Parts: sequence; structure tokens; C-alpha cells
Amino acid sequence: MSTYHPLSEAEAIEIARTIEGVFEPGAKLVSREIGDGNLNLVFHISDPAAGRSIILKQALPYAKVVGESWPLTLDRARIESEALILEGQLAPGLVPNVYLYDKDLALTIMEDLSDHVIMRQGLMNSGRYPLFAEHISTFLAQTLFFTSDLGHNQQEKKLRTSGFINPELCKITEDLIFDHPYTDADTNSFDPAIRDEAEALWNDGALHLEVALLREKFLTHSQALLHGDLHTGSIFITPESTKVIDPEFAYYGPMGFDIGAVIANLLLNFASREGWDKTAAEREEYEAYLLQTVKDVLEKFEAKFLALWNEQGVDRLAGSAPGYKENYMQRLLQDTIGFAGCKMVRRIVGLAHVADIDKIQDAAVRERAQRLALRIGKTLIASNRSFTSVNQLIDAVQTANAAVKA
Amino acid sequence: MSTYHPLSEAEAIEIARTIEGVFEPGAKLVSREIGDGNLNLVFHISDPAAGRSIILKQALPYAKVVGESWPLTLDRARIESEALILEGQLAPGLVPNVYLYDKDLALTIMEDLSDHVIMRQGLMNSGRYPLFAEHISTFLAQTLFFTSDLGHNQQEKKLRTSGFINPELCKITEDLIFDHPYTDADTNSFDPAIRDEAEALWNDGALHLEVALLREKFLTHSQALLHGDLHTGSIFITPESTKVIDPEFAYYGPMGFDIGAVIANLLLNFASREGWDKTAAEREEYEAYLLQTVKDVLEKFEAKFLALWNEQGVDRLAGSAPGYKENYMQRLLQDTIGFAGCKMVRRIVGLAHVADIDKIQDAAVRERAQRLALRIGKTLIASNRSFTSVNQLIDAVQTANAAVKA
Repeated sequence: MSTYHPLSEAEAIEIARTIEGVFEPGAKLVSREIGDGNLNLVFHISDPAAGRSIILKQALPYAKVVGESWPLTLDRARIESEALILEGQLAPGLVPNVYLYDKDLALTIMEDLSDHVIMRQGLMNSGRYPLFAEHISTFLAQTLFFTSDLGHNQQEKKLRTSGFINPELCKITEDLIFDHPYTDADTNSFDPAIRDEAEALWNDGALHLEVALLREKFLTHSQALLHGDLHTGSIFITPESTKVIDPEFAYYGPMGFDIGAVIANLLLNFASREGWDKTAAEREEYEAYLLQTVKDVLEKFEAKFLALWNEQGVDRLAGSAPGYKENYMQRLLQDTIGFAGCKMVRRIVGLAHVADIDKIQDAAVRERAQRLALRIGKTLIASNRSFTSVNQLIDAVQTANAAVKA
Repeated sequence: MSTYHPLSEAEAIEIARTIEGVFEPGAKLVSREIGDGNLNLVFHISDPAAGRSIILKQALPYAKVVGESWPLTLDRARIESEALILEGQLAPGLVPNVYLYDKDLALTIMEDLSDHVIMRQGLMNSGRYPLFAEHISTFLAQTLFFTSDLGHNQQEKKLRTSGFINPELCKITEDLIFDHPYTDADTNSFDPAIRDEAEALWNDGALHLEVALLREKFLTHSQALLHGDLHTGSIFITPESTKVIDPEFAYYGPMGFDIGAVIANLLLNFASREGWDKTAAEREEYEAYLLQTVKDVLEKFEAKFLALWNEQGVDRLAGSAPGYKENYMQRLLQDTIGFAGCKMVRRIVGLAHVADIDKIQDAAVRERAQRLALRIGKTLIASNRSFTSVNQLIDAVQTANAAVKA
């Protein structure tokens, strides 16, 4: 069984039985393959009689996105498993427990979170998650601070970095987020109705400069161990619980990329609200909830990160140099906003879209949502180096919203 | 012989004989250990009759600096050897040839450069090196460009980075350059006469902010493979030839750190000129030669780096985004100036000094040289983010010089 091959459901059940403390000996187990088959097999193995279950996630040796397929290293399963374990240590309760990682099979066995929903789906269903900002800000502050030079022994950090060199997955980001949307690339995909927007992106030199600066940070700034793909499809949620999954893009990069991913996906849902079949008042109220969540995530993150720095900082000079913390936090906010903008733009004109907007049935409404998402995204990119507060960000989103809906 | 142990001269000779194409069989070889014994054994093995020679450099498992001793990884011999080989490919003729690297013995066998002098000594003897700026700018442009994301496949670069994770040697820099000079650290060492200057450094909050920002870049910006210790003691020179040696501090860091090291050491010699027993006119003429060399190094580097970028750049967006190259080169100049300042300051008040200034016999003259070096260094650090041209740098040095000598 140990040579790599895609597992059958029967094999998955046999492996699941070997995990101690989950299933009773002789339990009647049921398997359901619930992956989308694009990157991984995902087996949900359960003992319905006892109400117990477990997830087996096996990496496939290729990636498929919107019909394209290319080979992909199985080593990403190791990176994902090691990142999950580390995140679980740094942010207990905010990622699934890992029971086992099998290198040969590129297989991670972990806690079943079927009682949660994927947050993107939850937001599309207009769910409210009053603890989300609290949870995700803790996840971000803990994982980013304690893997950075501010909170981790600086020599150990260097050694750990080499275990998270992740060229293939980083290349997906470098191409699909930081390059293709800004040129007439074959991978781009957009509604013909917004071709004018796409062409404007290809010819906006001032925007290209900002994207090039953000791309440079993604390529060269080894600030902290990132999740690397922290959109709302990588978050399992209930009103009481938040679990971050799928860190296969993990690598040492700029912190703002993770924070920006969360913000971008909240704002993509914000841009989709016109597609919601409710009264204007109800829509506005949910939009306000989303913007308040953006604000809460950023403000809670900053407060928690600074508290960790003040209490557990390991860098003498970074802790004592007057004005350095303020300078650092402002640059981090600016990075966050710039990366958020890049993540929004690529979801409208690039290869991989989001269901929040693509599922809007009415073509005209969908088009307005796309234009709004692009307007917000471009504003965040274009002005990222000028933002000095969270409130300015909220104002910028509201201004873009008013302009598109006028 | 293959288990690690410090070699005897007899063993060194036997190993040297095994290198093909250097010595005749049966040649009568002579060994001279020419290392300073602080970090490495360095055997000069020669056949005086044939006029042939070779260098064996063996890492010792400890470092000694000014009486202090601490354990140090032998892996630095691998890093040094691999960096030398790579630098030789990227900048042919500007580093010694490597004949052999023996991992078990932490031993590198390389070209003998005894016909060259150490550049620091050459400058202390007021030598002129009319090709130095041409050579070192080529070395810097070639090694930095082709190991950066601008000139190297970005996925291969990531893989190569893990071979140059260098925590122990980086820690020496992080402590001795980017921390200790700015606090009352035990490792600091300075003439009692300039205690006022040292204490001012410990209490200069504005300077600490700039040093903290530069320290952050050293810790997190994986721009290119650096030499990592490119002072004039790491350069062998003649009027016709320049050879960069000793890249055991090599790691992926900010480019400006290497360029700044060259500039700092030229300026440290500049600060030492008052100790030269010549007429004021001769001193001024040599000072002008040093400043012209600083200017030439920076201007030639910029021209060569940009030419490589224009002709051999591998990053689409970095090549096409309007204003990005100008933005990049300006930040690189600012980093260079900031790092140069840090390298000057630490050579006056930190653990390791430079002979250019320490060897000045007259205490009053030496003190003025130290104050001048600190004045220049602090100016470069304090204003590093404001510099926009090489001429501004030269002006700042001349202004500091005039102020101290007034």
C-alpha cells in the first residue's frame, strides 16, 4: 500500500481503521469521496452507527483548474500537513487536528469538520458569523507573529524556512495573481461584457507599477510562514467555530498576503450583494455587516499582533527603536490592502473566479457586481501605499460602491 | 584522512599532490600556514622550483574574534565553496578558481593569489587600482542580477535559496552590525576617547529606527545571493586584477548589503587619510581618488545592472511596469547607503575594527579619523531613505569631512 497511487474507497477505509481512538474495532465504516478531483482526493470515512468520522486527504500528482491540467508535486501534502500541525500549535482550535501524515501516499488524515460549512457558501447564504473576526484575527496574529523574526528565534526561523520552500505552488500565485490579469494572457477568463475592464487593466501603467511592487514582496519578503491561500473557501465555519484548512500554498512570505486574502474575499462577497434577492434595506444591512467584519478583522489583528510583540517580542532593536512598531504596522496595513486588491482583481478577470459573483444569475446584475469588485480592487492596489488607517479603507470601499451604483 | 580533523602541513601537502594538473609528480612541495587561525587554516602549498602554488583552506569548528571564541558550523565551508563556484560562473575571472571541495574535511582547494595583495592593505599603502571600480561593479551586477528574481528562473531561485540558509554566520552580522553598536553590549570595543560618541549611538532613537528598518531587510529580504562580507579584506587586488574571496557569509539577502560593504570600506579608508604622513595636497588627492572610486562603483554598477535587466530580464511585469526600474534602482541605492553607514559605525564602536583606522599611531589623529568615520556613517544611516543620487552621497561625505576637520 505504501507506493504512491490514488487510493480506492476500500483502501481509504482500511487506512482509517488504523487510526487509534477514532473507530471501534469492527465498526461498519462508510466512505464518501467529497473532493472536487482537481487537486486532491478527499475521503469522508464515517461510522454512522457511532456518529464518528474522519477525513483522509490525498494529494493528486496534478492540478486541474477550469479544464487546464498540469503536473504538481506531491511534496505539497508534506507542506500542508506540516503547516497544519504548526498552525494548530500556534492557534489551537482554529485548524483541524492532524492524526497522521503518510509521506509515501501523500496522505493527511485529519479531523472531520462536516458540522461546519465552507465560509464562502455560508456568506453566499447570507450567514452571520459573529465570532469570525475574533477567531481569524487570532489565527493571523498567532501564526504570523510566532513565525516571524519578531516572535521566533531568528536562527530557527531560517532553518524552518527551508522546509517551506514551495516553488510550484508559489508559481501558481505569481502567474495567476501577480501577472496574467495585467496582460492579455491565455489563462485569463472574464465575461465578454466586461472586456473593456480587462483591457483597461492590461494598459494601466500606474497600476502595473503597484502590482510589480507587490509581486516583488511576494517573491522576496520572507516575513512569516503564510497560509498562502486564505480565501473563504479555505475556511470552515459555524457561528461558534472557525477552522482554517488547506495550507498547501504555505511558504515564508509577506504577512499582508494572508490578511489581504481574508479581506478580499469578504469584499468580493460585498460586491456580490446586489445579486441577493432581498430588499435594499436588508442588502444594505448585510453589506454593513461585511464591512464591519473587515474592520473588526483588521483592528483585532493589529491589537493582538502588537500585544504579542509587546509581551513576547524576541528582537531587541525592533522592540525598542522609537516609531518602529508604528512604521511596521502601517506598512503591514498597506501591504494587506494592496494584496487584497490583487486578490479581488484576479477573481474577476483571471483564471479562477469566486462563486459569490459567478453564481449571480442575472447577467446585468452580475456585470455590475464584477465592475464593483474591480473598482474596489483597483482602488486598493492603486492607493495601497497611501492608506494610513482602516477607516480610510472602509471609506474607499463605500465610495467605490456609491460610484458604481450611482 | 576523511574524518574531520585540523590538517597538519604534511597532510596538506599530500592532499595538494592529488589535485590534477598543478604539481609535477615527485615535485618537492613546501607548505606555509598563512591563516590567522581565527576561523580557518589556510595552507599555501608551493613547488618553488616550478613556480607553482595552490591554496588549501580548511574551516575550523570555531570562530575567534578579538579573544572571544564560539563554536561555528563546518557547513560554512560548503557554503563558501558553492558560492565561489557560482560566483566564478557568473563573474568569470573575478574569484579564485576552485579545484576541489572536500565536505568531510571542510576543505576547499583553490587558486593561489599570492601575486595579489589584500585590498585593505593596498589602500593602507595608498595604492591605486584603476580597474577596481570596473571589476567590482561587474562582480556585483553579475552575481546580484543573475541570482535575483529579475535574472534567474524564480522557481530555481527558491530551490537554490535552501542551499544557502546560513543561520550562524547571519547571526554574527545581525548581532555585531545591526544590534550591538546601538546598545551598551559587552562585545562593543572602542577607544575611551570616543565614549561620548558610543553613548550617543546608544541613545539616538531616530538612528535606531533606521537601523531597525535596515536590520529587518537583512533578516527578511531574499533579493539575491550575497557574498555577505564584502569588505576590502575579502578582496585580493593588483592594478590589473580583482579577486573576491571568502564568501562564507553567503546567503539570500538584500543586494544593498554587498554594495554597501564595498562603499563603507572605501569610506573607512577615506576617514583614515589624515593618518597618512604626506602633504595636505597629496592627502586630498588620494581622498578625491577614493571618492571618485565610490562614485564609479555605484554608477558603473547601476549601468551594468540595468543593462542586464533590459537585455536578460526574466520577469515580465518587472520589465514592463512603467517606473518600476527607476523605483527599484532608487531603493537599491538607498539600501546601499544605509547598509554602508551601518558597516562604518560598527567598525569604530563594535567588536571588529579595521586596520585602516586602528593602525593610526597618533592618538589624536586616530580619534579624529574615528569621529569622521562615525559622522559619515551616521549621516548615511540617518538619511538613507532620502538619498536619490550618487552625487548626493558624495556631497554628504564631503560635508561630514569638512565639518570634522573644521
